[in-house]
Amino acid sequence: MFTVYGDSLSGNCYKIQLLASLLGVPMRWVELNILNKDTQSDSFLQKNPLGKIPVLETADGEVISESNAILHFIADQHAITGKDALSKARVLQWQFFEQYSHEPYIAVARFINFYLGLPANRREEYLQKQEGGNKALAHMEKQLSKSKYLVGDDLTLADISLYAYTHVAEQGGFDLNQYPAILAWIARIEALPNYTAMNADN
Amino acid sequence: MFTVYGDSLSGNCYKIQLLASLLGVPMRWVELNILNKDTQSDSFLQKNPLGKIPVLETADGEVISESNAILHFIADQHAITGKDALSKARVLQWQFFEQYSHEPYIAVARFINFYLGLPANRREEYLQKQEGGNKALAHMEKQLSKSKYLVGDDLTLADISLYAYTHVAEQGGFDLNQYPAILAWIARIEALPNYTAMNADN
Repeated sequence: MFTVYGDSLSGNCYKIQLLASLLGVPMRWVELNILNKDTQSDSFLQKNPLGKIPVLETADGEVISESNAILHFIADQHAITGKDALSKARVLQWQFFEQYSHEPYIAVARFINFYLGLPANRREEYLQKQEGGNKALAHMEKQLSKSKYLVGDDLTLADISLYAYTHVAEQGGFDLNQYPAILAWIARIEALPNYTAMNADN
Repeated sequence: MFTVYGDSLSGNCYKIQLLASLLGVPMRWVELNILNKDTQSDSFLQKNPLGKIPVLETADGEVISESNAILHFIADQHAITGKDALSKARVLQWQFFEQYSHEPYIAVARFINFYLGLPANRREEYLQKQEGGNKALAHMEKQLSKSKYLVGDDLTLADISLYAYTHVAEQGGFDLNQYPAILAWIARIEALPNYTAMNADN
């Protein structure tokens, strides 16, 4: 069995919990607290010198970082990674979009607002994140108006990666009521067998 | 045969040229100029609404964006994507690292300095990119001090993704002489059969 180090309030970490639950894959979870700087301890930095979570550690002590790479490791060869070369590439396309064009806006705005309580010295940065975040949501809305999930009519890792911060985007100041196809997709994911909610929602 | 739309001065686009050359995969290349806003034309936005390159278009008219996803599409099932689940995940780990922790610093600093000529109104942003860029290079240096390539002793897509902007990092103000293992890795890649240089170097 593998071990995952994560903070249950982090969307990047929640991706792993959601996938493991949906696929019924057992894992050992070690809870770390980002705000308490647990990820900057010497023992954690030995696992991931970048001091970032989530991190997966195999029974052999091999360490993998980057949430979306961990998803692929857990789901290796499973249809949820994409059924053919084109859909596999589309899954990755959405995951790279998530890390470059979605997370840096939506997750960071949420962090500033929801974790830090929108301090005055980060208000301008928070406001600057709104345009990029809405652009990312509009891009998802366009695709989800055409297909049930991001890569066609079946759930893939792309949905798990994008669901993590999208479903809590309102905590970053984004109005999801502007995006009806995204709301329908969120409801579809939350109705899946073995769906598990993010701890922050409880 | 597929078509790739790209700007030969862009490292993200060069990744595709380098992989296709190393694997001997034929493609049709359509040159676009980012600075001339070719990627914002109506016809291009129909292919990729985000207005970003590179974009791959299959003979059937299917479109894939995100440079690293395109690499996986071209190299599908090839050993260069990683030989087993662990090495495949490690390849992706480095590629997500590239897009989140490397490209936003090194490629953006290079763009401001080398493309735009370091205008005064972007000088502060350029200087702010130096710390993150050097952190990314130090992370690569650590791995390349232990293995010939980023994921063990064989070339993978991780190397192609990271080589693209690393080998021209000096155009972004980064001193590669501080990173001897990176310099040795660059030389190793440039000695590969069918290696092709980035047009900007010519």
